[in-house]
Amino acid sequence: MGDDRRGEEGSVAHLREKMKPGLYQALERIAAVIDERRGGDPEKSYVARLTSKGEDAVLKKIGEEATETVLAAKGGDRLQLVRETADLWFHCMIVLAQHGLGPSDVLAELHRREGISGIDEKAARRRTVPRKE
Amino acid sequence: MGDDRRGEEGSVAHLREKMKPGLYQALERIAAVIDERRGGDPEKSYVARLTSKGEDAVLKKIGEEATETVLAAKGGDRLQLVRETADLWFHCMIVLAQHGLGPSDVLAELHRREGISGIDEKAARRRTVPRKE
Amino acid sequence: MGDDRRGEEGSVAHLREKMKPGLYQALERIAAVIDERRGGDPEKSYVARLTSKGEDAVLKKIGEEATETVLAAKGGDRLQLVRETADLWFHCMIVLAQHGLGPSDVLAELHRREGISGIDEKAARRRTVPRKE
Amino acid sequence: MGDDRRGEEGSVAHLREKMKPGLYQALERIAAVIDERRGGDPEKSYVARLTSKGEDAVLKKIGEEATETVLAAKGGDRLQLVRETADLWFHCMIVLAQHGLGPSDVLAELHRREGISGIDEKAARRRTVPRKE
Repeated sequence: MGDDRRGEEGSVAHLREKMKPGLYQALERIAAVIDERRGGDPEKSYVARLTSKGEDAVLKKIGEEATETVLAAKGGDRLQLVRETADLWFHCMIVLAQHGLGPSDVLAELHRREGISGIDEKAARRRTVPRKE
Repeated sequence: MGDDRRGEEGSVAHLREKMKPGLYQALERIAAVIDERRGGDPEKSYVARLTSKGEDAVLKKIGEEATETVLAAKGGDRLQLVRETADLWFHCMIVLAQHGLGPSDVLAELHRREGISGIDEKAARRRTVPRKE
Repeated sequence: MGDDRRGEEGSVAHLREKMKPGLYQALERIAAVIDERRGGDPEKSYVARLTSKGEDAVLKKIGEEATETVLAAKGGDRLQLVRETADLWFHCMIVLAQHGLGPSDVLAELHRREGISGIDEKAARRRTVPRKE
Repeated sequence: MGDDRRGEEGSVAHLREKMKPGLYQALERIAAVIDERRGGDPEKSYVARLTSKGEDAVLKKIGEEATETVLAAKGGDRLQLVRETADLWFHCMIVLAQHGLGPSDVLAELHRREGISGIDEKAARRRTVPRKE
């Protein structure tokens, strides 16, 4: 995404500090790969192999990876926490793809919740979790 | 996946098609809000309230939201699936923040796995899940 | 395990050693209470209140209590581990009741797996988890 | 629930009606097998193999089996629901064993909650989940 479009200047500086350009596009690229591979040859692709086992097989992975994320956090292993969260989000993207959705839909939902006064304050005001806004 | 097929340009075009500008920055903005709020006044913020209960309270939410994501997918409710995935990713970002990490670390990990020949083919070749690459 | 070592008699003796009489019947009594209460007045009963919210509400609790069991174990708090496992099994019994099943069906399945040579050796021999026997 | 309605005797009659004698002892026998096998030769036993991988490996199974229980219930497959619940309880017993605990501790906790006026009514009165009684 272009620097010209990204109004929040502070945010751009923050991004430059801590990540390579193109990082966010990775989500979209990976979503595109997932969408291309699912339903493909199970011998050639992890996504094809997993999705060939049916939706329950993919959903099981969500429970599994979520537990691994919890264990990594509880164990205090930061590297492992990043890996397990990446696994969790990756499998979430497979589930999303199976329903004709992608990470941009999730980001749009998070963006929507940000609203005028911010995702968190709004939630606080209504004394509920963010999605109930 | 090949650079020839999904270069920077194709990706940007793809982004333009399906999302408002600024969507990806939402992740970073939300991560910044989370980081600012945690440890704050529990009366004013959901994140502050949740994190004030200790790490286990946040980790419990990971298990809860993962189950809700599974149920939404299984129920075939696309809108609900997007909401629950957003909840799951949001709470993952709280956990990440508690460990001095953010969504860019997860994206960097996913990006790293993309490597030269693609996140999925590599996994397939080694007959293992992506993180074991 | 061999029938010679742990027959009906040895087992009863074992039970006498470590628990009050009537403990196992507690499972059946609780299952009966659950079955009686579900569909009842949400104002008077936790089970009625939870089941009145639909099956997904109960299933969410399974994910939640499982995560709490994991956290209690990981945290090394034995008292908490017993409590969370009791919560998990209690909510499993609600799910079972919603499908016309009870703890005796689960015990019968575990008993079935014991078979002639034991639940564990059989699993080991076939290099698979117990249920795939 | 009232002792007048479901005393020791009624419970035993109930058990006789719907299950083979020795079913409840199965829990104790399986717990004994688990306790004997863990730490044993990974080549000979599923429990030994799983526990040899460390506690996180066992805890991951809790998350996995809980998700499978949820999926079986949601899918309406009663046979599968019984199997997955048996898997879940079996792995809970492995976790318990790793902490010097067993199913009788869980049953004692459930029994304790039954109290005078019943597990469910008490929970209802206090407007909280059973464990917070």
